[in-house]
Amino acid sequence: MSFTDLSIAKEATIKPIEKIAESAGISRDALELYGNYKAKINVDLLEPAAKLGQVVLVTALSPTPAGEGKSTVTVGLADALKQLKESVVVALREPSLGPVMGVKGGATGGGFAQVLPMEDINLHFTGDIHAITTANNALAAFIDNHLHQGNKLHIDPRRITWKRVLDMNDRALRQVTVGLGGPAQGVPREDGFDITVASEIMAVLCLADSLEDLKERLAQMVIGYTYDKEPVTVRNLGVEGALTLLLKDALKPNLVQTIEGTPAIIHGGPFANIAHGCNSLMATQTARRLADIVVTEAGFGADLGAEKFMHIKSRKGNFHPDAVVIVATVRALKMHGGVAKDSLKESNHDAVRRGIVNLAKHVETIREFGIEPVIALNRFVTDTEEELAEVIGWAEAEEIELALTNVWEQGGEGGLELAKIVKRQLATPNQFAHLYDEQDSVEEKLRAIVQKVYGGADVQLSDKAQKQLVELKKYGWDALPICMAKTQYSLSDQPKLLGRPEGFTITIREIIPKLGAGFLVCLTGDIMTMPGLPKQPAALNMDVGEDGEAVGLF
Amino acid sequence: MSFTDLSIAKEATIKPIEKIAESAGISRDALELYGNYKAKINVDLLEPAAKLGQVVLVTALSPTPAGEGKSTVTVGLADALKQLKESVVVALREPSLGPVMGVKGGATGGGFAQVLPMEDINLHFTGDIHAITTANNALAAFIDNHLHQGNKLHIDPRRITWKRVLDMNDRALRQVTVGLGGPAQGVPREDGFDITVASEIMAVLCLADSLEDLKERLAQMVIGYTYDKEPVTVRNLGVEGALTLLLKDALKPNLVQTIEGTPAIIHGGPFANIAHGCNSLMATQTARRLADIVVTEAGFGADLGAEKFMHIKSRKGNFHPDAVVIVATVRALKMHGGVAKDSLKESNHDAVRRGIVNLAKHVETIREFGIEPVIALNRFVTDTEEELAEVIGWAEAEEIELALTNVWEQGGEGGLELAKIVKRQLATPNQFAHLYDEQDSVEEKLRAIVQKVYGGADVQLSDKAQKQLVELKKYGWDALPICMAKTQYSLSDQPKLLGRPEGFTITIREIIPKLGAGFLVCLTGDIMTMPGLPKQPAALNMDVGEDGEAVGLF
Repeated sequence: MSFTDLSIAKEATIKPIEKIAESAGISRDALELYGNYKAKINVDLLEPAAKLGQVVLVTALSPTPAGEGKSTVTVGLADALKQLKESVVVALREPSLGPVMGVKGGATGGGFAQVLPMEDINLHFTGDIHAITTANNALAAFIDNHLHQGNKLHIDPRRITWKRVLDMNDRALRQVTVGLGGPAQGVPREDGFDITVASEIMAVLCLADSLEDLKERLAQMVIGYTYDKEPVTVRNLGVEGALTLLLKDALKPNLVQTIEGTPAIIHGGPFANIAHGCNSLMATQTARRLADIVVTEAGFGADLGAEKFMHIKSRKGNFHPDAVVIVATVRALKMHGGVAKDSLKESNHDAVRRGIVNLAKHVETIREFGIEPVIALNRFVTDTEEELAEVIGWAEAEEIELALTNVWEQGGEGGLELAKIVKRQLATPNQFAHLYDEQDSVEEKLRAIVQKVYGGADVQLSDKAQKQLVELKKYGWDALPICMAKTQYSLSDQPKLLGRPEGFTITIREIIPKLGAGFLVCLTGDIMTMPGLPKQPAALNMDVGEDGEAVGLF
Repeated sequence: MSFTDLSIAKEATIKPIEKIAESAGISRDALELYGNYKAKINVDLLEPAAKLGQVVLVTALSPTPAGEGKSTVTVGLADALKQLKESVVVALREPSLGPVMGVKGGATGGGFAQVLPMEDINLHFTGDIHAITTANNALAAFIDNHLHQGNKLHIDPRRITWKRVLDMNDRALRQVTVGLGGPAQGVPREDGFDITVASEIMAVLCLADSLEDLKERLAQMVIGYTYDKEPVTVRNLGVEGALTLLLKDALKPNLVQTIEGTPAIIHGGPFANIAHGCNSLMATQTARRLADIVVTEAGFGADLGAEKFMHIKSRKGNFHPDAVVIVATVRALKMHGGVAKDSLKESNHDAVRRGIVNLAKHVETIREFGIEPVIALNRFVTDTEEELAEVIGWAEAEEIELALTNVWEQGGEGGLELAKIVKRQLATPNQFAHLYDEQDSVEEKLRAIVQKVYGGADVQLSDKAQKQLVELKKYGWDALPICMAKTQYSLSDQPKLLGRPEGFTITIREIIPKLGAGFLVCLTGDIMTMPGLPKQPAALNMDVGEDGEAVGLF
């Protein structure tokens, strides 16, 4: 096939963003244009909504390096609902430049189910992530300047927990020493950089419901501890106003469109393995004001993004999904069934059958939350009828709704079957329940996630994490939800344990309180908060063509 | 006075940017809107110009911490020319967030001679500087990844000259070690961060005249040396395409407006002490296509920005200024005459007279270039008639054109006298000549700058610089212009030597070849390529008001 996402995007007819806004009921004065095809929405200027739309959450089985097309299905489902004359808005995350330059080349859906203008969205978009990077690093500079200028707050340089960030995959910055070179160059100390999308400010931006809430959350962020081990916050430094100023435009949701002209709100972009993995609450709630149905996705498998969507994002927003779609592919099932990536093109329905255990666990997880999921079996050209039949037969036997989707090639048309099932689910009230209460002990909350979501046996805390837990309790920070940092490839904390591992114990290496975001990050396994680039970064294929157009964004 | 720049800006009537574009002859389809009051100009879609406009360069005496209002005079002069019915565009640099957060609070002119929307321009604007930061740090990540993945090019980690950047004043990042933590975290090495506006990519963006030229310059950048001391370029790494892709929108000039509705192109923002200090060549040349007169500024005193404007920027653009304005203030002259900053409010015409030597040197310098300068004596409320008379009398005696300006309070009206003199100068051909040829030896070029521009006796190279010079010659890189990195406060390399020091020798500490920018950076004195924050950063006063508006940008 000579089509690429980029070539399809370039051939597509894109409408002026004012037209898209108009179709979504957004008045011109609530729009701040960024070129002809992107706009920020000034939420304060929107008409009040009579009621809020229903929410369809798209999640997936445990992903594989092959890619399952979750964003593609999310976009295709929205376009299909539009074809069925529903009032619909799709709400996605903003791509991080790190993976775009590293492995992905792009993250805006694919084929005939993508958002436009894909070049801009994949590069700097409207600058939100740059604003977050800037605010994060301004805070770091204020902290180091405070140390340098006399350290009135008695901050212990060894106990500064605030890290710098870049929106790049840059492993050499994971662990650094700063302030070298003598007394004029600051105070030497150990430091490190995370990727911006793993930063607390990204989470804060994604969970704030107003500018005031944003400022209050920024003020509450803990940046480290004094020599007496008292927490030091942004409020103590007095810079929450400056940080809010740097973020005031970034807080406004961005409006773009799908290739079929469905309004798309793309805003906020935390990763789901090392952060909470959902687009912004502002975006989802804005979308709910504009449409009867909002289709949104959460990152990676249901063990990561969906779990955090339920326990962190929608809990803050006081809502829950009205329907859940789990995306699966024959290729991913084969990998979970033991096939190596290089052999995926060979038909192997036995491997598909063996791999279904992974999908089955995610179905069980969504049912644990009281929601009956729908499986979207996303077709690839290499899938054989025999392989597809394996999955379809299993779903029938288990009485799970399943639809084949072919949205990459067909756009919304390829998602009509899925859309019809989703509409039925939306008409059926569900019995949603959280799997833990915020007031439960940290150990109970962890156990709930490990046992009910991961299907593991138990959880254990490293010595470091145990000491941190004692501190957390001392400060009264233990009544917060958990944000697990775990590999996306396995239900366990071992990336190579595919399928449905059982009897495993999850080890919590470290617990990092994020008081601004309002959750406790629990690091498991070898998970890194700053990725690295591969041997052949995607950037090597990127270029600008003769007419100034992007080349090499897939 | 209860007015602030921000309060005046907020009260001002701002026109839709389409109207400003129309008045400048820019068609709607050549505009890419960023909100209602900012736009990027797609230069390829502009009508061809019958002739290019004349250029007025605004420079200054050696600045003082008090601030002389050079940008303010630049804006006011443009507004005055507009009042005189001239076709005029003003071309300025983009403010760096580092100084905005640190000491300045804002850098968009002042009072009734400023550019709008000042909040946006001072914060993220259209994201150009963020794009430069991103491209710079992507390159750094590609370099460290190359080391980590086997180092096929045999890059010597001790001889990597490419530094990371942030657009922040952050002294703790001047000298760092990266890649710590074991084999999975990259290769340990010494590194450092510069401020983005001092980066080579900023210079490349400001000197490129097309996307192809940008890509070629990026490809030529030297990032370090192999173990065999052979230079390694971006082309060797194969990532010039990706860097160009990251910068393709940043290369487009930005259109805004002055408070009086004069079109303003604000694009590129290198500092003039540690970089070449001029806005982009694209911006100036675009402005020349749109107007008969372009008023532009170069940073700090005529020894820095103006010298680099002549020898680097306008040489690349194959033009030279048609008129030069030197901004002076009574306050600055008093400081050059020995008055401490705290005593500036007291009238002291003796000190003014003593300080005039500094201004006199800058007048001589501009005359060295074959141009007869005009002095803009920029009034402050504390100036006394006696003090002003001192300067006016001297200028009359020396037969130098001088105009009093009062643009902060009066806008263009306060610059009419200056505008009339400038118009006369523009009607008089000048005898422009460079003070050195690119083909001169590095020592000759340095001596020309030190003797003819700084008024010093001689130049000497540190041992390190001498060794670097030998290498430069070996690689054939010595036929490039010089970009001096020198304190802005003194004509010498000693910040405390105010007035007109004589007989001094400038020491070149280090010579850094910037092949993409096409110049040799020569570091003098203690000049830092990464500033620090002051004890009380301006950020402490920043906030967002109830209506989401900026607070604390002066």
